[in-house]
Amino acid sequence: MDCLFCKIVKGEIPSNKVLENDNVLVFHDIQPAAPVHVLIIPKKHIASMNDAADEDFALIGEMHRAAQQAAAELGISDSGFRLINNCGRDGEQTVFHLHYHLLGGARLGALTGLSSSHG
Amino acid sequence: MDCLFCKIVKGEIPSNKVLENDNVLVFHDIQPAAPVHVLIIPKKHIASMNDAADEDFALIGEMHRAAQQAAAELGISDSGFRLINNCGRDGEQTVFHLHYHLLGGARLGALTGLSSSHG
Repeated sequence: MDCLFCKIVKGEIPSNKVLENDNVLVFHDIQPAAPVHVLIIPKKHIASMNDAADEDFALIGEMHRAAQQAAAELGISDSGFRLINNCGRDGEQTVFHLHYHLLGGARLGALTGLSSSHG
Repeated sequence: MDCLFCKIVKGEIPSNKVLENDNVLVFHDIQPAAPVHVLIIPKKHIASMNDAADEDFALIGEMHRAAQQAAAELGISDSGFRLINNCGRDGEQTVFHLHYHLLGGARLGALTGLSSSHG
């Protein structure tokens, strides 16, 4: 399977890891969009949120525990952060292996560039 | 407890519901930041992602199943969507009851307004 994130899971492509457990890997994004920007991925290949099967949602919950832990490790629990999952065209998903962006280290502003919005 | 979303869960404040099950409620945001903008909340009061306890992450997984179902019901599964959780100051969290924004119906653009970014 020619999936960038599967290759990172296997160690075929290097990554700057924040944490790793049996099911989840957290590593720094190579094109950070904020002072802190890491990606949370499942080791299992799931293409997108649309492709998550009923049995995958426990793993998606685990990904959020890893996100909470990564935020603490990166020193952004108290200052705050944003978690984002992009799915498909309108979500601007570019890598088709499910992932969440964890962003922090600065005030992150509006939810989207579409209009003024709130949190 | 003077929590806006707990009052919505109890029906003390009305909401335009998309779906509801024993643990999760999905309803339209009253100040939409995109053509489709709904909120996914747990019925249990959890103040933020920082406050989620180990036993809450299965529920957070369930919230994502509800998000996937809501996207299908709202007709944005194929066109795509973005899921966002804001935590604390830098995340611009305004209601301190854990929630995810489900946004769609238009190309959502960059991850943040901080810099050009990717998906």
